[in-house]
Amino acid sequence: MKRAMYFLDQKDMPTKWYNILPDLPEPLPDALHPGTGNPLTPPDLAPLFPMALIMQEYSPERYIEIPDEVQEIYHTFRPSILHRAYRLEKALDTSAKIYYKYEGTSQAGSHKLNTAVAQAYYNKKEGIKRISTETGAGQWGSAIAMGCKFFDLECKVYMVKISYNQKPYRRILMETWGATCVPSPSPDTKAGRDMLAKDPNCNGSLGLAISEAVEDAVSRDDTHYSLGSVLNHVLLHQTIIGEEARLQMEKADDYPDILIGCVGGGSNFGGMVLPWLRDKISGAKPKMRVIAVEPQASPSLTKGPYTYDFGDVAGLTPLLKMYTLGHDFMPAPVHAGGLRYHGMSPIVSHLCKLGLIEAQAVPQVATFEAGVQFARTEGIVSAPEANHAIRVTIDEALKCRETGEAKTILMCHSGHGNFDLTAYDEYLSGRLQDYTFSDTEMKKALDNLPKVPGK
Amino acid sequence: MKRAMYFLDQKDMPTKWYNILPDLPEPLPDALHPGTGNPLTPPDLAPLFPMALIMQEYSPERYIEIPDEVQEIYHTFRPSILHRAYRLEKALDTSAKIYYKYEGTSQAGSHKLNTAVAQAYYNKKEGIKRISTETGAGQWGSAIAMGCKFFDLECKVYMVKISYNQKPYRRILMETWGATCVPSPSPDTKAGRDMLAKDPNCNGSLGLAISEAVEDAVSRDDTHYSLGSVLNHVLLHQTIIGEEARLQMEKADDYPDILIGCVGGGSNFGGMVLPWLRDKISGAKPKMRVIAVEPQASPSLTKGPYTYDFGDVAGLTPLLKMYTLGHDFMPAPVHAGGLRYHGMSPIVSHLCKLGLIEAQAVPQVATFEAGVQFARTEGIVSAPEANHAIRVTIDEALKCRETGEAKTILMCHSGHGNFDLTAYDEYLSGRLQDYTFSDTEMKKALDNLPKVPGK
Repeated sequence: MKRAMYFLDQKDMPTKWYNILPDLPEPLPDALHPGTGNPLTPPDLAPLFPMALIMQEYSPERYIEIPDEVQEIYHTFRPSILHRAYRLEKALDTSAKIYYKYEGTSQAGSHKLNTAVAQAYYNKKEGIKRISTETGAGQWGSAIAMGCKFFDLECKVYMVKISYNQKPYRRILMETWGATCVPSPSPDTKAGRDMLAKDPNCNGSLGLAISEAVEDAVSRDDTHYSLGSVLNHVLLHQTIIGEEARLQMEKADDYPDILIGCVGGGSNFGGMVLPWLRDKISGAKPKMRVIAVEPQASPSLTKGPYTYDFGDVAGLTPLLKMYTLGHDFMPAPVHAGGLRYHGMSPIVSHLCKLGLIEAQAVPQVATFEAGVQFARTEGIVSAPEANHAIRVTIDEALKCRETGEAKTILMCHSGHGNFDLTAYDEYLSGRLQDYTFSDTEMKKALDNLPKVPGK
Repeated sequence: MKRAMYFLDQKDMPTKWYNILPDLPEPLPDALHPGTGNPLTPPDLAPLFPMALIMQEYSPERYIEIPDEVQEIYHTFRPSILHRAYRLEKALDTSAKIYYKYEGTSQAGSHKLNTAVAQAYYNKKEGIKRISTETGAGQWGSAIAMGCKFFDLECKVYMVKISYNQKPYRRILMETWGATCVPSPSPDTKAGRDMLAKDPNCNGSLGLAISEAVEDAVSRDDTHYSLGSVLNHVLLHQTIIGEEARLQMEKADDYPDILIGCVGGGSNFGGMVLPWLRDKISGAKPKMRVIAVEPQASPSLTKGPYTYDFGDVAGLTPLLKMYTLGHDFMPAPVHAGGLRYHGMSPIVSHLCKLGLIEAQAVPQVATFEAGVQFARTEGIVSAPEANHAIRVTIDEALKCRETGEAKTILMCHSGHGNFDLTAYDEYLSGRLQDYTFSDTEMKKALDNLPKVPGK
């Protein structure tokens, strides 16, 4: 009987996160202070984050020990399973070998819990009592709600009002885990009250929700802010995915020729690929391909310039060097809410600029076609974000069918689609549509990019 | 670092189901033909089921080999993980050790897939092209939809109309896996048409949906009927749960003093406990307690008589000797849809009569209280059915806190609650209520029990 799932005993689990910063062939460009244009320093971030996380943004250490308390929580849902997709391979009649690492069995249903647990721990350790954050579709909000509960922190989530009303399940999930979730704009902050005064029926936006969460955090000594992607420390925590995958691929006696993951802010992709990229950077695996997959509706890596921009819509964050569609980008309503982001994590952007990874943009309908094929072979109904990675995995496997090559593909599967079934309904009934990001939109975005002070 | 999850390598997986029939201290009472009152024979069942499944109903073999093709599919989601609930233990401050086997990571979200895969396989092997079945809340319907897709069978699901309208996610899940799902009553069968002629707005019932699915199966040569619980062969397939758990508890170097599972038709409970009960029957573990947990709103084991009754509401099935609330039982609208059944599997009923297992009935609100405590410690948001097992697990652990005993509790966790979040919302907002089954209702049910022909 062929083995289709690779476990890892908890005693063999990685106990360190991998930090790619010291291994980069060129250093990561500095984040800049939005007021002065000078490189950002740790004290600049202290009102928002605990010092331990801030230092992880800059760390020169190749490996960072996962605290025992975090490992203990990881042990409630990790290691995640590495699957060999025999049934998908057979359906595609491909000579490729397809593996996928499935993050959907965490209690929160995605990889987001990997960093939520770590962030909650470091905040708790620094004496913080309460976390504020924003959430769009609710994936990150539910992960941080659970992370906070594990460490007895209060959690306040500002959820974009239109999602709050349309996706009550995510709100209930957060409440079940003990968090408070309010629709944004809310009367709880000045930013929210100002907006409500202007437009009582405002549906909210991620940018406004960030403003509310940040205001909440800086206005209370007991509270910090928490972010689910983009930043170096978030990608660091996610490397547990790739570190586990390395051990599991060893068990399978195999090594990936192609790595594939979806990108929004870049944390799921980074978590999987950074631990493998060191072999490419060192020259040991020069031909390994690493593919970041993004929606055609939000094509930062494939269409955006590599430049300094704000991380948020309102322009409150430091300036980050990244591929961006402009911080005032209004994403089309594709179902992959986690990929509707204007920018890209500075680490993933830098790797792309250096040619260490490549990027592909795919249209929405084709991702659901791939998702349904995956569901009908492997069984898992995937999140719309994961369907992007599945699309390109299938495409690469079909190329192998043409060439007869037996390439080994390793895909990161970010999570399940149990809360996204209306999107499948639209696809199955032919109502789902594609969106693209036009050149006109791109030109407008370029005109609105911020000036770096003093430059 | 303490180990909290016990995996099992696929090469060490059990390759046989355990059949308790030959180990029973007294033989299981015969099922009876509803027309003659004579013991049911295999040919009586042939219009509905493939002969391989029918023979499993009667098999004298202690172990039945799992076909390679079924094992291959099991390998896409099994072995399921055995968890040690350290965080729940700590929250309860108990000296008990709590383990749970979690079936919620199967692609269908529950244990139902274990038998769906096997049933689809045996039907396929007998040349059947199409399966008809009914579903209430949709848990069984989605599992058999996936099981059929794995073996390229068509699948037609008659879903109780009120659920079809209220729970579109379950319907979409079935369709994503390629099944056809229609609201019952439907115009596709005589039973459905008759009802629609009488009442075009009829909301449907499980009894009517069964009638439609059975009519569909007997009226077409290419079609068989499929049932998700109650029957011997269904419990047999579920024993993969308990067989895996035995190997995992060995790894944990532990043995359960108390086994706990929820019961509706009895397949989840039976699947876990039958493989352990042989140690009690043999006398090796005479003190082991085995507890079946049912809702106070549907208390067949704790309130019903042990007698012959129909398995369905319409009275189409053979007469089964079981604990029953009467086949015309109208269950209160508790959220644990999978436990709203009037009867109980003949095997579980027989074990209860023999005193080999015990039963407890619990009120709904207390089960959600337990479920929320579980979610806030172990992280998993559980199905309402599973919350019944969690309630009694917590109760037994709290007893250990009183007595100081370090008992080992092993619970079967039937699945996740991602599609049941509105029930959590009701609980958290104080709107959830309890239901009981009154003595008046019980008396009425006793008056309506069927007469066995010729007796």
